[in-house]
Amino acid sequence: MADLTDQSEQVVEFWYEFASTYSYPAAMRVEAVAARAHIAVRWQPFLLGPIFAELGWSTSPFNLQPAKGAYMWHDLARSCARLRLDFRRPEPFPQNGLLAARVATALPDDGTRARFSRAVYRAEFADGRIISEPEVIAALLAEQGLDAEALLLRAADPAVKQTLREQTDAAKRHGIFGAPTWRTPDGELFWGNDRLEEALDWVRTIAHGRQP
Amino acid sequence: MADLTDQSEQVVEFWYEFASTYSYPAAMRVEAVAARAHIAVRWQPFLLGPIFAELGWSTSPFNLQPAKGAYMWHDLARSCARLRLDFRRPEPFPQNGLLAARVATALPDDGTRARFSRAVYRAEFADGRIISEPEVIAALLAEQGLDAEALLLRAADPAVKQTLREQTDAAKRHGIFGAPTWRTPDGELFWGNDRLEEALDWVRTIAHGRQP
Repeated sequence: MADLTDQSEQVVEFWYEFASTYSYPAAMRVEAVAARAHIAVRWQPFLLGPIFAELGWSTSPFNLQPAKGAYMWHDLARSCARLRLDFRRPEPFPQNGLLAARVATALPDDGTRARFSRAVYRAEFADGRIISEPEVIAALLAEQGLDAEALLLRAADPAVKQTLREQTDAAKRHGIFGAPTWRTPDGELFWGNDRLEEALDWVRTIAHGRQP
Repeated sequence: MADLTDQSEQVVEFWYEFASTYSYPAAMRVEAVAARAHIAVRWQPFLLGPIFAELGWSTSPFNLQPAKGAYMWHDLARSCARLRLDFRRPEPFPQNGLLAARVATALPDDGTRARFSRAVYRAEFADGRIISEPEVIAALLAEQGLDAEALLLRAADPAVKQTLREQTDAAKRHGIFGAPTWRTPDGELFWGNDRLEEALDWVRTIAHGRQP
């Protein structure tokens, strides 16, 4: 799709939204699966809300389509069981992931952002916590030995808010419409938790200079 | 989900709609993949139109969501290339699969329905033909040595129309909201071409009396 100038990079971009259900198993398994393929993961938080709003949706498509929603909850529980991940359906759903996304944006993508993001998903999809509450986010940060107070202040910084807006604009520009989405260095998209392995295959193939 | 009375049957139900894009690779690969797992396939044509209409949709969600549609066409071409399947984007899209679904319903599920259904998908997604045209369906039937005239008459029979309506009602009752959907003897659903292998794993597991 795009140019191949950085095709030698063995990385995959993980575009995720904290309200997204299948982003939970994706976030929990991506590092192990990618490490086995010797591919690094770039954690790319973004917001689906503005993308859904352009379609006239004010809530999750899983709420707008009851049969699809019922399937998703059953399938998500089943997928988590397969992956030996705890699962508890969040109430309410969807949760507002704006604060978590701002904090993730403020954290460096050196493992810190990944650890925080996994903690948020676990809180939301396994522990029944409400991730829009600043106290919940502060507790998750503190549990990781991070300075919660400073990071919540930093998350409210106009520069961080602007970076997240630009990240969401970049998602739209890339053609991303849902989460999780895997994006390869040559701009290929693979949508869904279950397409991670195919995205990694693609990254390996282009890194070896072959046509996928 | 449902009762397990027929758990010893090594079968998977393939619920498909002729307008559905990912049903094309699903239809072309299911028999080979299922045969390797020693699982029989039951071909279950149904209509998505009445299910989408209940959501207020008058066309494919891929037309209603342009970014998702653009991704799907790219991904479908990529998936077909991976499977060494010819692919040409149908114009118009979606096509009206009502006649094809009635003919498929009229055919016995002893291999005849599967062969006809694959021929319809090939005509639509590889050969640029318009499957709503009776002459196209007649030609596909004739190519398989079937009595086209008699089968088109039979497809217009009220009993066949009613069977297809009941089949679509059964899809709704099962919680099916898209195609392809794989359904196991215990009523588990797996949605999407890329979930076939997981559905077959499930069938094998329940056939051996284990908890999936």
